[in-house]
Amino acid sequence: MSIVKKLSFDANCEEKEKYTLQNGDDCYDQANGHTVDVEGKYTKAKQAHWLLRRIYILSWIRSYDRERAFADLIAGITLGLTIIPQSIAYAALAGLSSEYGLYSAFIGSIIYVFFGTIPQVSIGPTSLMAILTLQFCADKPVQVVIVLAFLAGLVELAMGVFQLGFIVSFIPAPVTKAFTSGTAVIVVFAQIKNLLGVRVKGFPSIGEFFGSIRPSDAAMGIFCLVVLLSLRLLSQVKFKQDSPMTRRLKKVLWYISISRNALVVFFTGLLVFIWVKKSSLEAVPFALSSKVSSAMPSIKLPPFAFEYQNRTYVFTDILHELGSGIVVVPIVAVLANVAIAKAFVKDGNLDASQEMLTLGLCNIAGSFFSAMPTCGAFTRSAVSQASGVRTPMAGIYTGLIVLSALSILTPYFQYIPKASLSAVLIAAVIFMIDLAPVKELWQTNKKDFFSWVGSFIICLVAGVELGLLFGIVLSMVFILLRLGNPKIEVSLKQEESLTYVHVVPQSDIYYTGVDTLRGELRGASSLYRHDFPVVLDCSRFMQFDATFTEMLTAVSKEMAENDVLLILQNMSLKVQQMLPVIGNVRFCQEDSQLISHLQQEKESGQQLDAKL
Amino acid sequence: MSIVKKLSFDANCEEKEKYTLQNGDDCYDQANGHTVDVEGKYTKAKQAHWLLRRIYILSWIRSYDRERAFADLIAGITLGLTIIPQSIAYAALAGLSSEYGLYSAFIGSIIYVFFGTIPQVSIGPTSLMAILTLQFCADKPVQVVIVLAFLAGLVELAMGVFQLGFIVSFIPAPVTKAFTSGTAVIVVFAQIKNLLGVRVKGFPSIGEFFGSIRPSDAAMGIFCLVVLLSLRLLSQVKFKQDSPMTRRLKKVLWYISISRNALVVFFTGLLVFIWVKKSSLEAVPFALSSKVSSAMPSIKLPPFAFEYQNRTYVFTDILHELGSGIVVVPIVAVLANVAIAKAFVKDGNLDASQEMLTLGLCNIAGSFFSAMPTCGAFTRSAVSQASGVRTPMAGIYTGLIVLSALSILTPYFQYIPKASLSAVLIAAVIFMIDLAPVKELWQTNKKDFFSWVGSFIICLVAGVELGLLFGIVLSMVFILLRLGNPKIEVSLKQEESLTYVHVVPQSDIYYTGVDTLRGELRGASSLYRHDFPVVLDCSRFMQFDATFTEMLTAVSKEMAENDVLLILQNMSLKVQQMLPVIGNVRFCQEDSQLISHLQQEKESGQQLDAKL
Repeated sequence: MSIVKKLSFDANCEEKEKYTLQNGDDCYDQANGHTVDVEGKYTKAKQAHWLLRRIYILSWIRSYDRERAFADLIAGITLGLTIIPQSIAYAALAGLSSEYGLYSAFIGSIIYVFFGTIPQVSIGPTSLMAILTLQFCADKPVQVVIVLAFLAGLVELAMGVFQLGFIVSFIPAPVTKAFTSGTAVIVVFAQIKNLLGVRVKGFPSIGEFFGSIRPSDAAMGIFCLVVLLSLRLLSQVKFKQDSPMTRRLKKVLWYISISRNALVVFFTGLLVFIWVKKSSLEAVPFALSSKVSSAMPSIKLPPFAFEYQNRTYVFTDILHELGSGIVVVPIVAVLANVAIAKAFVKDGNLDASQEMLTLGLCNIAGSFFSAMPTCGAFTRSAVSQASGVRTPMAGIYTGLIVLSALSILTPYFQYIPKASLSAVLIAAVIFMIDLAPVKELWQTNKKDFFSWVGSFIICLVAGVELGLLFGIVLSMVFILLRLGNPKIEVSLKQEESLTYVHVVPQSDIYYTGVDTLRGELRGASSLYRHDFPVVLDCSRFMQFDATFTEMLTAVSKEMAENDVLLILQNMSLKVQQMLPVIGNVRFCQEDSQLISHLQQEKESGQQLDAKL
Repeated sequence: MSIVKKLSFDANCEEKEKYTLQNGDDCYDQANGHTVDVEGKYTKAKQAHWLLRRIYILSWIRSYDRERAFADLIAGITLGLTIIPQSIAYAALAGLSSEYGLYSAFIGSIIYVFFGTIPQVSIGPTSLMAILTLQFCADKPVQVVIVLAFLAGLVELAMGVFQLGFIVSFIPAPVTKAFTSGTAVIVVFAQIKNLLGVRVKGFPSIGEFFGSIRPSDAAMGIFCLVVLLSLRLLSQVKFKQDSPMTRRLKKVLWYISISRNALVVFFTGLLVFIWVKKSSLEAVPFALSSKVSSAMPSIKLPPFAFEYQNRTYVFTDILHELGSGIVVVPIVAVLANVAIAKAFVKDGNLDASQEMLTLGLCNIAGSFFSAMPTCGAFTRSAVSQASGVRTPMAGIYTGLIVLSALSILTPYFQYIPKASLSAVLIAAVIFMIDLAPVKELWQTNKKDFFSWVGSFIICLVAGVELGLLFGIVLSMVFILLRLGNPKIEVSLKQEESLTYVHVVPQSDIYYTGVDTLRGELRGASSLYRHDFPVVLDCSRFMQFDATFTEMLTAVSKEMAENDVLLILQNMSLKVQQMLPVIGNVRFCQEDSQLISHLQQEKESGQQLDAKL
């Protein structure tokens, strides 16, 4: 077996200059779109790439075609019809007036087109960000909220630039699944009231709930839901024949299917509009969306200093008002955003650092348009997915719709019935509730099972961000427990009439495993009454540091008292120099060296015995 | 090379039933004092051992001799003279009257004799516990403090019973050293005021400090310090001759040396006593210790329900008053106690679970004697060490002295000058300040260097428990970062004219490394234009779980699109069953199997080419 060439590179191909290829021809690295020349060096273009690659649109815009454009148009319009009432609701939840929500939706959608990597993700106001904004900025001037958006964006941008995207690998698959299902369940429960026209605040009792259902809203909601679920099946219709006619029909059905969300919102809105024109707004028996206030966004610096109620706020005052929010808001935003991206990404190829950077740019740009803090929303991603989105380009149409809602179309958005919007959200997320993993995980891996169940329950009862955090921390604790108790094999070996105790770690040893190793070494030596030399295989020592040095020094001194030789096998020269010189310690690399050490030891022992 | 026998056991020898020895005779396991019989099973006595081994005194009392007894007597008396003024001071710091501190000191010292493992450790009031008690029980009735001691003890006991002692392996050596030096520096700074008779509260300026030095106290303190440091050298005196006389003299000098702390306290106290008798208490120019109130401890149930200021407190009220203190106090106590034990233990053989259990018993027993929460104190451990302590038996004498302070000797303890006590503490801890690691760690390991420096600085500015926690968390983050980015070697290999891409992880892979592995697999396949099959060595997959399954499924599907075969080498049968069936995935264990798979693949490929 012959190694032709060793390669070493990372997932982002940052280190690929190392590549050397054996065959003379250029090698095209499809994964990253680079060409490696004969010497294995990247062409000069590579140097400019890091910054250019951040503008992610450049990687897909060249292959953008009519089919994708049409799918994105439908998805973008659908998303626009969803995001407008959502933005108004979330702005209200954060204690702000509706235009701040719409500004956020507009900027987030546009910026994401250029930098975002996941077609489904839609940056804008979310319930999570609204609740956090309320928590850190309640009863404070709106300028504080805008500065919060700026600072959160700055932190997110920094996380992206410093490539902290690797944190995504700390979210195990079962936790992502639990987060997805948990969030979907929450959305269904939150929307079911609007769907049925229930107006009781908080958690009503079952009797109270059914008693307060408004028949007209419920009829509208359930009708929309049935229509949406039926239209969804359209794209799966199969024809017996395969003629040009059926192929064309299939395509039309597919278009209708992915347009279903937009169609439902549009036609129910039209129905209400006609109703109002024929009689009056009060006569409409449906709960309608809030009124949009007409106000185009204007670009200006975030208010780093301002006056409010006869008090002057300078930048340090604002920092003081925001407190830990400056750190908490971006961390929660990044965590939620990355988890959503991970739930929707195809085949797990997620560039989380790029997502952080994009989120940061969205928030920074947003703060110049008086936006509140934003991140990706789970519901909108599900709606995008259900509307057949293909690339982030959909955001352009979403942005334009939001802009039109703020200007020429302002009077029309208030006619959208709440029940039909709820039907759209429920129909989009209900297929993301996947309880199948529970049984499978129980059978294959108990650890995964508990991660799933724990994250799911905590998502439901304490909030999605805590559920996510719980899953991550629990999985880390499982790893740390294993690192604290590494498997070590102790065996008595014989080689050419030489006997020795062989201590071989079966997994990587970090400083956390040093105490276990100490115990094994002491036990191994004393079990055989200190009769044989102890050989410790050091090839799986990671992070050889002061904790290792201290342990080996202590153990070798103990062994010296019993005249036991300690042989350290496979320890690098650099590490050997870190150890103090101790009489009864030898180093060796190969087995032949080991045997010669053992031989010497035996001879010197015999000489000593002869003298005595 | 032949393996004679495989052994597997842990440091606490819990699993040693597995032992099978080749030679017929019994094997005495010195490390744990057990005998393994011919079949390698422990003799029946083992079953009773777990509980008996908890009474740690049984393991050393049989070898207790006159020399140790004398050393312990001196150390115990010295500790008694130190702990009494300390207890009074710390009780005051916690907002309690002096007898509560003395009760705690008495019980802690006595219980530790029977269960404790580290001779130097002295359980009793500490500044850390006093501050925490104040934090959670300020302005609350003293009964709440006693119940806190009980509950904290219960939690500590549970941590010991559930063998949570492994957390000690999560404290790296540099952090233990930084904690030791940091605490010692704090003690020196805290005591220097008493040593020089400075009575300014808080942090005085340098001018203020020197201005308020009281010459009489300073003279006394510095004189004591010089005496102590000189007497310390006595035990190191070397004689040219080695006669029975010099040997005897050497022993006497050694006794004087280890008695130095007790001697200094006793004679300075005697001086003051005579001074007072000759003139009056007011005429003494030294700051003296507080007056001890005479009150023998009485045994009674902790006050789980009581009346205070016309209000009845039931157990739930007390729980509510204590809040998170029920968890925070025992965790901080255990952390501090384990860190101190680790700093003083010989050769790192620390049974931390036993220490937790002992601390729990001390606090539970303490609550029956109206004690406040206790843990091991760094200062007293240093004094014990300096007084030549040999076994935990010293606690008996300490306990007796505390008891006598509460009864017959009550009037005499107030004559001890504060300056001489401070001299004792400073002389004991000053040699624990060790700044040498800084340079060494910088040269050998930067990670260790930053752990040390960070922990040291945080110990000084934010408190020792936070410094300790910082060091632990920082070291864990270093490990997690490495786990998130495992080293993976990718090479093109040739075997009997068969070429394949070999992907071999160089370190253990947990779920955190799955994303990196995914990137390597995709990169490896695309770099060679999907020309060769990819062989992945799975032998270092730890914790094979849903995250692995998902990644392998996704990657193999991607490879299937490019007609690339994915061969998983060294994957256990159990794990293979967890993977869904995928057309282009093969399994193999040995190289021969691998070759036959490759051969088949090549032939089928050639057939396909021929057909086309």
